[in-house]
Amino acid sequence: MLALGIDPGTLNLGWGVVEREGNRLRHVAHGVVRLKPGAALAHRLVDIAEALSEVISVHKPVVGSVESLFFHKDAQAASKLGHARGVVLLCLARANVDVFEYPPARVKRTLVGHGQADKRQMALMVRAVLGLAEPPASDAADALALAITHLRVGTLIRALSEAAPDPRSPRQRLLVALGQKRRARPL
Amino acid sequence: MLALGIDPGTLNLGWGVVEREGNRLRHVAHGVVRLKPGAALAHRLVDIAEALSEVISVHKPVVGSVESLFFHKDAQAASKLGHARGVVLLCLARANVDVFEYPPARVKRTLVGHGQADKRQMALMVRAVLGLAEPPASDAADALALAITHLRVGTLIRALSEAAPDPRSPRQRLLVALGQKRRARPL
Repeated sequence: MLALGIDPGTLNLGWGVVEREGNRLRHVAHGVVRLKPGAALAHRLVDIAEALSEVISVHKPVVGSVESLFFHKDAQAASKLGHARGVVLLCLARANVDVFEYPPARVKRTLVGHGQADKRQMALMVRAVLGLAEPPASDAADALALAITHLRVGTLIRALSEAAPDPRSPRQRLLVALGQKRRARPL
Repeated sequence: MLALGIDPGTLNLGWGVVEREGNRLRHVAHGVVRLKPGAALAHRLVDIAEALSEVISVHKPVVGSVESLFFHKDAQAASKLGHARGVVLLCLARANVDVFEYPPARVKRTLVGHGQADKRQMALMVRAVLGLAEPPASDAADALALAITHLRVGTLIRALSEAAPDPRSPRQRLLVALGQKRRARPL
């Protein structure tokens, strides 16, 4: 099970590939696509699409994990991020990579146990979880954290759906399972 | 000279192709891509990319004309529009179609002479300028208006660049030319 996490932007696009083998997570690759700040937006979008298609064709991920659509107060930032995110979703859908979305607070809670972690803490925790020699660059760390979140939360969802029928809603069951998992083995 | 105007959206995407033959504008084709409202955003973006690539490969426009990036007060609307616009810019750039951007008020002034025209007025004026039997649907009318704007404004810019060197800035020269054009032949 190979997951590709992506942190889109119009200046830097972070990506990270993580594999789950049984209960272990293995780092496969990560990187940051640096876009030319002076280039026309259309050309930066072409660069994003090409870099991402290359990553997908090399690593052949089964799922893509991106931040859910949250809304900046700043409409200008929301619009620019929307351009990059639109191209990312297009590339994933065209390569038949299923897209899962996680809110930033969910990613932080999965990695460091609470929703207020800063970028440095996230990079250090990603390094620890994947056994990297150095903490990855911030954009790549966020992307790896998204892949890790999917592999951990996705495992739980699958385990629940394979278990005996349960009258609680999937969300209730997920919350209960996440709570149990946190108690049994701190994330 | 064939121009493709595009009015992007995540529910409806309007497009229109107009040709300039000498000083005359000729309607070639227009349409509205209706996107499935219940479909995942990623799949709607794939539908946008496929429909637009089809239009480009059939009509082979030289230039694309889109609204310039203006900013909604509403960050959610700005983000969604950004997704669609990002995919549109990507498709145009990948097909080597040069993209020109015009603010909405510029398009309205070019078509109806002032910046406060409503959608009905725009559709009626597009019908009149292109000699259509009926006013086009609103999204297609906006797209045709963008193509018309490029062909009119672009003609002026080219005429100016071919004229004798002029110490004024290109913008000053364009404003003067637009004023003269408005006086000589109402747009």
